[in-house]
Amino acid sequence: MTDLKPFFEIENATGAGSAVIVCEHASNDLAATAAGLGLDPVQREAHIAWDPGALGLAQGLSALLDAPLIRATASRLIYDLNRPPDAAGAMPEKSEIHPIPGNRALSPDERLSRTEAHYLPFHSALFALLSRRLAVSKPTALITVHSFTPVYFGNPRAVELGIIHDEDDRLARAIAARPTGLMTRLNEPYSAADGVTHTLALHATPLGLAHAMLEIRNDLIATPAAQGQWPSASPP
Amino acid sequence: MTDLKPFFEIENATGAGSAVIVCEHASNDLAATAAGLGLDPVQREAHIAWDPGALGLAQGLSALLDAPLIRATASRLIYDLNRPPDAAGAMPEKSEIHPIPGNRALSPDERLSRTEAHYLPFHSALFALLSRRLAVSKPTALITVHSFTPVYFGNPRAVELGIIHDEDDRLARAIAARPTGLMTRLNEPYSAADGVTHTLALHATPLGLAHAMLEIRNDLIATPAAQGQWPSASPP
Repeated sequence: MTDLKPFFEIENATGAGSAVIVCEHASNDLAATAAGLGLDPVQREAHIAWDPGALGLAQGLSALLDAPLIRATASRLIYDLNRPPDAAGAMPEKSEIHPIPGNRALSPDERLSRTEAHYLPFHSALFALLSRRLAVSKPTALITVHSFTPVYFGNPRAVELGIIHDEDDRLARAIAARPTGLMTRLNEPYSAADGVTHTLALHATPLGLAHAMLEIRNDLIATPAAQGQWPSASPP
Repeated sequence: MTDLKPFFEIENATGAGSAVIVCEHASNDLAATAAGLGLDPVQREAHIAWDPGALGLAQGLSALLDAPLIRATASRLIYDLNRPPDAAGAMPEKSEIHPIPGNRALSPDERLSRTEAHYLPFHSALFALLSRRLAVSKPTALITVHSFTPVYFGNPRAVELGIIHDEDDRLARAIAARPTGLMTRLNEPYSAADGVTHTLALHATPLGLAHAMLEIRNDLIATPAAQGQWPSASPP
């Protein structure tokens, strides 16, 4: 058996806080692919390859809440960890207006290979982390951190902070009620009905965990300074 | 790292059918415990230690449907694989009227140890099996097989076949509509609200799989002959 390089990292694994932070789109690394899936350098930095700013924000929350953080170390375009293996969006042929040449007409073997290399290890590790906490009655809220682009298919988005939930809306509502100074909306710019809550559905709902998916407009967290300021603007 | 004996088996892993069969309570094996958790020989054979007859039935369905089968090889009393790690029923101090001496006042370390030895490997293996099928678009219905005791807390149960579901009732309704000659009820003798659909909630619902939990009254499948006859009475 070859040594498989895992495509995720866990930081602050023994964090004593009451949350676990997840950043599925933390990375735009395409090194594991042939020719970067055929993207040009501008595309590789864009919102289609990852969620710009989300990792810095997630790390800030991890420190603030003393929470473990699990983050992807490969691009969502190789495998989008917030999608199940049969979803077209898991290994998309197109993202917004951009064709992804290296994802065209993937064979079943290639889909299986990416599922085994990316999806299974990430979600197995997260499942183990959460299950171990539950076994010893550690309170655990699951918070996933994402960013979205200010303009999508030509449409500007006014919302600045979207808070999305799966079956249980209580943590989402509690976060939405906090004074952040941001234009905040529940279930925008997406909701569970748009198929964007897979991580929450896979882990939070079956384990009965309070949960929320934070979607921050990426122009608000474009620099490390901006990413670091945002969590401290919302004291616990 | 010591060699951990896994407490499950997968049969017919490459089965070409459209279902995966799960039998969480297939075994009453207490060999991994000190003094069999303090149970007497009669209790070890009773419904509290496992689901009598369920394994034979599950294996019959696995053959009939050419479906992979994942089955526990340790008793539900050590860890009930159809419960999350923070549930009292995962490692119950009492089952129906029977105290389980070896489960009294379990420490967090012991709960963690059993979660790591039983719950994590079983559900990680099932997750991997299902995810790999989805990656290559194999149709996959998840069917879990259980049996229940004819008398519970002194109350006789008239239902003979209960079909329970989590979020999606379509397969359950389709199975309930089949002529089996059995007194059949949806969501009896339990429903999802009773906390008995963890495996379905963990795997079927987030992956969008058709699913059903079959609960057969154990007097109807008390012998291998009875277990083997039942599936063939319901041709696909």
